[in-house]
Amino acid sequence: MGPEFSVFALLGLPEFRPGDDVAGILGDALAGVARDGDIVAITSKIVSKAEGRIVAAADREDAITAETVRLVAERAHADGSGTTRIVENRQGLVMAAAGVDASNAPDGHVLLLPENPDRSALHIAQVLRDRLGIRVGVILTDTFGRPWREGQTDQAIGAAGVTVLEQLAGTADANGKTLHVTAPAVADELAAAAELVKGKAAGRPVAVIRGLGHLVTGLDVPGARALQRASDRDMFRQGSQEAYAEGYAAGLATHSD
Amino acid sequence: MGPEFSVFALLGLPEFRPGDDVAGILGDALAGVARDGDIVAITSKIVSKAEGRIVAAADREDAITAETVRLVAERAHADGSGTTRIVENRQGLVMAAAGVDASNAPDGHVLLLPENPDRSALHIAQVLRDRLGIRVGVILTDTFGRPWREGQTDQAIGAAGVTVLEQLAGTADANGKTLHVTAPAVADELAAAAELVKGKAAGRPVAVIRGLGHLVTGLDVPGARALQRASDRDMFRQGSQEAYAEGYAAGLATHSD
Repeated sequence: MGPEFSVFALLGLPEFRPGDDVAGILGDALAGVARDGDIVAITSKIVSKAEGRIVAAADREDAITAETVRLVAERAHADGSGTTRIVENRQGLVMAAAGVDASNAPDGHVLLLPENPDRSALHIAQVLRDRLGIRVGVILTDTFGRPWREGQTDQAIGAAGVTVLEQLAGTADANGKTLHVTAPAVADELAAAAELVKGKAAGRPVAVIRGLGHLVTGLDVPGARALQRASDRDMFRQGSQEAYAEGYAAGLATHSD
Repeated sequence: MGPEFSVFALLGLPEFRPGDDVAGILGDALAGVARDGDIVAITSKIVSKAEGRIVAAADREDAITAETVRLVAERAHADGSGTTRIVENRQGLVMAAAGVDASNAPDGHVLLLPENPDRSALHIAQVLRDRLGIRVGVILTDTFGRPWREGQTDQAIGAAGVTVLEQLAGTADANGKTLHVTAPAVADELAAAAELVKGKAAGRPVAVIRGLGHLVTGLDVPGARALQRASDRDMFRQGSQEAYAEGYAAGLATHSD
């Protein structure tokens, strides 16, 4: 057998409410369970709830607007039920509805993302390390759609004490050939692995990933923000329709000059 | 403890060469190792090699062109070292360089993707099931960059005997609220999990995922092709620059009429 890791859901967690001490509650739940080198993957929704990032569902569209830094793409639903907005949000993430989400929110409410997911992850990691006396990594996860692919996968929106991007450029492949641009986004792969046991519906918001201790670091390394590409370096900074419309207007204006 | 799964790399595999019987070799390696409900994640490169999908590196640009159905976005490297082309390839995947890749290819050569990754996965799954007398799922994986995010993650480009997209729309979340568009792309999450033990450099092209037998199905379910969104339904069917340029030309032409 080669390298091996395991992923398990942490059971017995309470329903989280505004003002809850997530780090303390997880410290209790992980005492006697967590081991040195474990990575704790936490659905960001429970952090949002504890941080009171909850607004009335009636204010959903306004909340999305308030969370939006830049509209990336927008499309009306074919059935007239509304509009999908892909935006860059205040956390720097490009995602549908700025991450504002009704699922797993209290009745009649929607959840915003944590104010600063890396900061929340860092606080949790510090408390867990102090409390448990072991080195654990922490990621906060959320669910993302993707261009070109159906369905959603979980990605890391916050991280502390864990490698988020493995820099392999300059190392050799199995044939001794130098790898160039290779940089596995391991924090996103950890988030995806965790989703496979957390699920969407089951009330299992936390998973523990064991056996990948080489990815656990000190608390002074970059968080998940390092996974965000600056929009001026991105070939898909705007939706196709939006970019076309902007070009069309510019083409038209050129002639009117 | 809640639901749990483990992922381990399969060791002792040979270097793969054109004409090799991947299914047979994996059948040998998995005999006495694999269990009912396991999912075998295979780096598509070894299938490419066995299928003889190898061309001389000097012909790389031509090979990319030949694999391309549609140019999605293109950008010259700032350092003058060439051009990145994001294309939709003959397999229907939107990816850099059509998936043509020098890493882990024989010296002086590049690898194309398998001709039909779902068909290759199905053949391997059939042989493994017959040979081992158990139900295993198979995914073929490859490495993808992503809009808006740094680094790469592995995704499923082929699949057989495994759920690729979990349809949760209509089911309830932990608060009893009905989920709407939720459809975890579990095959991509499995590919990401497998990458965490396979790595890029280590000569470990196959991983076994154990404990998620509820995702293993008959061999008559959709393959990874079902994860591909039709381009006319995609808000990012073209790069921003390309869409802008098309719009600009149209705007200009309107006035010249």
